[in-house]
Amino acid sequence: MTEFLIKPSLNNKKVYKIKKSINENGKVENIPVIEEKPLTLYLNNQEIVTMMTIGDYPEYLALGYLYNQGMLHAYSEVTKIEYHNDLNVVVVRTKNKTNYEKKLKKKVNTSGCAQGTVFGDLYSEIEKIKLNKKISISHQQLISLSKKINMEPSLYLKVGAIHGCVLCEVDKPLYYFEDVGRHNAVDKIAGLILQKNINTDNLVFYTTGRLTSEMVIKCIKMQIPILLSRSGFTAWAIEIAKKKNLTMIGRMKGKRLNILSGEFRFTNE
Amino acid sequence: MTEFLIKPSLNNKKVYKIKKSINENGKVENIPVIEEKPLTLYLNNQEIVTMMTIGDYPEYLALGYLYNQGMLHAYSEVTKIEYHNDLNVVVVRTKNKTNYEKKLKKKVNTSGCAQGTVFGDLYSEIEKIKLNKKISISHQQLISLSKKINMEPSLYLKVGAIHGCVLCEVDKPLYYFEDVGRHNAVDKIAGLILQKNINTDNLVFYTTGRLTSEMVIKCIKMQIPILLSRSGFTAWAIEIAKKKNLTMIGRMKGKRLNILSGEFRFTNE
Repeated sequence: MTEFLIKPSLNNKKVYKIKKSINENGKVENIPVIEEKPLTLYLNNQEIVTMMTIGDYPEYLALGYLYNQGMLHAYSEVTKIEYHNDLNVVVVRTKNKTNYEKKLKKKVNTSGCAQGTVFGDLYSEIEKIKLNKKISISHQQLISLSKKINMEPSLYLKVGAIHGCVLCEVDKPLYYFEDVGRHNAVDKIAGLILQKNINTDNLVFYTTGRLTSEMVIKCIKMQIPILLSRSGFTAWAIEIAKKKNLTMIGRMKGKRLNILSGEFRFTNE
Repeated sequence: MTEFLIKPSLNNKKVYKIKKSINENGKVENIPVIEEKPLTLYLNNQEIVTMMTIGDYPEYLALGYLYNQGMLHAYSEVTKIEYHNDLNVVVVRTKNKTNYEKKLKKKVNTSGCAQGTVFGDLYSEIEKIKLNKKISISHQQLISLSKKINMEPSLYLKVGAIHGCVLCEVDKPLYYFEDVGRHNAVDKIAGLILQKNINTDNLVFYTTGRLTSEMVIKCIKMQIPILLSRSGFTAWAIEIAKKKNLTMIGRMKGKRLNILSGEFRFTNE
């Protein structure tokens, strides 16, 4: 089994419930079903959003959400994170007070799962980012990464109805988060990167979900040069990836894959 | 082939593009990739939301979105729908002016795909709804419905990275919509129901996507008593379905299925 630094929350009994199901033969079974609970995020005294989440890592989720929405730029701005389990509330406090009223009025609902909401000006935030061009990944490394991720015991394998996102080095997966929406999972990774100040120049981002424009934008915002998925992709996602020289690979299954952008980082070994 | 009244937009060349992809052997292929374009929705002079969509049936999408968000209650309130293809804008005009400023401030981002945003008070809107208890569906009908839907040529089969929603009678699928997010697809169906004033008491709703709380709430809001999916489900979705006596069946594949709620409408024939 792979040595993940953070593994799927499989042993967290709070993220799923046992529910009664009747199968096609009338047989009653007790099956594990994923939780989906509201978590309301405050930035100082400003209510930002209520997200539906499995409920693990609320602090990373909160930080990552604010970061990906452009409401927070560095962990040094944060003075405190308060998670109130009983209230389903997480509060992020910053040194300087903020006001996102205006931004909150103009939201873009994107095609992502959960939290599929970015502000209209998010794209402008990635315009200046230049991704590391010196990293490469081989076909064998991709096959091996996929295998390690897919073989890892996960909520997906146990409970289903969930997406996973994994932050990896080219030859090994490091942090594996899951959530009902793939955007919660990616925001947890963004929160981790922010809090631990992880240098992502040589890292790889793997998601079980589809590669839509928002997923590509978030990957670029986290300055990760390689984006992988076992699922499909949209035309706009490809266009943004090409513009920013992101290596974007979709439909990765076994040995098969589709390189949609940034093929210069891929080596056929 | 099934006689759908509305079929997937497979012959609409605007909903996908041909993109270059390189496979694992370095071979360049031209593959069809789904579009994902912004569509900004106005209710009278109020900007409501920008959605990412494949772009077909913008009028149904607009109507259904407003209906599912509780901003519109009957088609008779609507005086005009204007779709400006060049601007990616759709405007719904109503007899009486509306103001949703306050509601817009308090949004809940749910675990759905795309448009995964409901207002916090949405649940209260379904509290009084009573679903028709006199309809039933047999195991054979479910197998046959699934088969017809899965065999139908669709954007999913051709392009991938897309969800489908189908409004059916117990023994035949009627209207089949697809979109990048499953919530756009369900909103198109809601728009159709609203505009055509369809009585849904004896109808069935099939989705390729997961059964999350929001999907269940939308199904109940459309007063459809049976909800089917080939995918998984969340604990909260089951709880809401049980409370409202919705028949909810997940992981429908071939002969297999999981009945999570409302088993009284299922007959094992």
